[in-house]
Amino acid sequence: MLKEFEIIKKNFQKGSASIFLGIGDDAALFEKNKDSYWAISQDTLNIDTHFLSNTNPENLGWKSLAVNVSDILAMGGHPKYALLSLSMPSANELWVKKFSRGFFKCAKNYGVELIGGDTTHGSLSISICILGEVLKSNVLLRANAKVGDDIWVTGELGLAALGLKYKKRKFDVPKALINKAIISLEKPQPIKVDMQKLAKLSNSAIDLSDGLISDLEHILSQSKVGANIFLESLPTPVWIKEKKGFSLALSGGDDYQLLLTAPEGNRQKLIQFSTKNQIKLTRIGSITANKNMALMKANGQLLTFKEKGFEHFA
Amino acid sequence: MLKEFEIIKKNFQKGSASIFLGIGDDAALFEKNKDSYWAISQDTLNIDTHFLSNTNPENLGWKSLAVNVSDILAMGGHPKYALLSLSMPSANELWVKKFSRGFFKCAKNYGVELIGGDTTHGSLSISICILGEVLKSNVLLRANAKVGDDIWVTGELGLAALGLKYKKRKFDVPKALINKAIISLEKPQPIKVDMQKLAKLSNSAIDLSDGLISDLEHILSQSKVGANIFLESLPTPVWIKEKKGFSLALSGGDDYQLLLTAPEGNRQKLIQFSTKNQIKLTRIGSITANKNMALMKANGQLLTFKEKGFEHFA
Repeated sequence: MLKEFEIIKKNFQKGSASIFLGIGDDAALFEKNKDSYWAISQDTLNIDTHFLSNTNPENLGWKSLAVNVSDILAMGGHPKYALLSLSMPSANELWVKKFSRGFFKCAKNYGVELIGGDTTHGSLSISICILGEVLKSNVLLRANAKVGDDIWVTGELGLAALGLKYKKRKFDVPKALINKAIISLEKPQPIKVDMQKLAKLSNSAIDLSDGLISDLEHILSQSKVGANIFLESLPTPVWIKEKKGFSLALSGGDDYQLLLTAPEGNRQKLIQFSTKNQIKLTRIGSITANKNMALMKANGQLLTFKEKGFEHFA
Repeated sequence: MLKEFEIIKKNFQKGSASIFLGIGDDAALFEKNKDSYWAISQDTLNIDTHFLSNTNPENLGWKSLAVNVSDILAMGGHPKYALLSLSMPSANELWVKKFSRGFFKCAKNYGVELIGGDTTHGSLSISICILGEVLKSNVLLRANAKVGDDIWVTGELGLAALGLKYKKRKFDVPKALINKAIISLEKPQPIKVDMQKLAKLSNSAIDLSDGLISDLEHILSQSKVGANIFLESLPTPVWIKEKKGFSLALSGGDDYQLLLTAPEGNRQKLIQFSTKNQIKLTRIGSITANKNMALMKANGQLLTFKEKGFEHFA
């Protein structure tokens, strides 16, 4: 069985002459005007693969759009238009009403307009195409991380993965934490900031959907660099660190936060940006020249790990 | 159970201020530059709903893109970029190889570039978002049919529906016809012409996906007009007319041909255009002021009909 990325690469990744950037980043880019690109991306959520059948439809409406918003942010852009293809086994009006309520709440929150799409009969599936605008001077490519860059992540990691584990099989978790974890899973909150300002301070970015390690690896391979990650710095609740180790934060997936790399010289400005915009921004490591990813404990101990990010079809 | 269009209308059709045209036509339009719009559309094909499980994967790759190409043509535009979301129950490499071969043959034929998308685990489903370019002076809106316009269709109607009926349950059909019908079903051929020239001669258009009657009704209701359709003029094989009546051509669906309305004064130019471009273009009726759709036999007899176009979830 091939892994998702190999399938794509082998069969669909063809050279593209007329556009600036094709398959292989969070979004493709094509000319908008002399200052800007359109960023465009499409993500599909399928029942039983990306969400459980008992997911609250309003939250699902939110999440379907939020995961796409996250792709545009990861290019340094602002989302603008969306098209929604909704496949359903039957036309349950109440379900559609709740789903659309969540969808439009998310759309309003991030300034997205629904401009098209279709509804069809089929297994429950939501496919969204999103368009956003990115200043050419601000594009955050996976291939642009520089040796010496700090590595930053927004928000908290591992919560959604904890929520999913709990929904699949209940176990003993503090109530406040599990509520937060399920909300993270069902209603992810990509940051809501002026991305032009954040992108100006950064060199590269990726959205955290498959898990920190798996997503960071895309940056490392495309930028031809390595990374040191400081495990104790990972922004994940203490309970997770103590009970579950770091695996949920490293490879749980479904975080829909941003990983950014930025010059060390912008460290103070990024801290100021996070304070001013009331977003959590945590420095978790740095980009190295040696092309390996090293997970380091505070005492300098190097860890190895087996669990990788989620690979579709793996 | 609600019909598809009512579900969309009730829950997703919200006013849109910043774009030229939102949900409700074959594609949405938004500013490209002072002369052109981007036309964007998204269509999903699901197993058992839009194609049978034994469909040739290469043909399915072709069709998935062709049905989206058809939407851009129906706006008077040329397709340019596509994003492909492919959901599969398992990563069958041979299947993907064949599918992608058909997809890229269609892409090459219509000048489309694949710029993004994703592959995910789920019930077999193909969702494609397509972008095209339309000259502002050439936009073919469903709402722009004029009283007195001729009604034209490209290609032949009812063949795909015949092919589907036959694939579901074999019956006695001439071999040459059934081969043609199955190819029409599995490898629809939207016209390949300079749409700028065709659009200049026309007032409105829609792509024929749900069936002539159902699709024409969108033009009539949005243009607030009626139509006379001359049944004997319908471009459908004699065998279909004799054995199956007109229902396959009127409401079979899956034709992916264009229905155009054009001023009577352009009749000769359209005939010349069809000859020059070697496409079949048939005048099947005219737009009237009385807001009804009348199906007329050559002897002037009016027909009533019960079978309507395919409505998802109906």
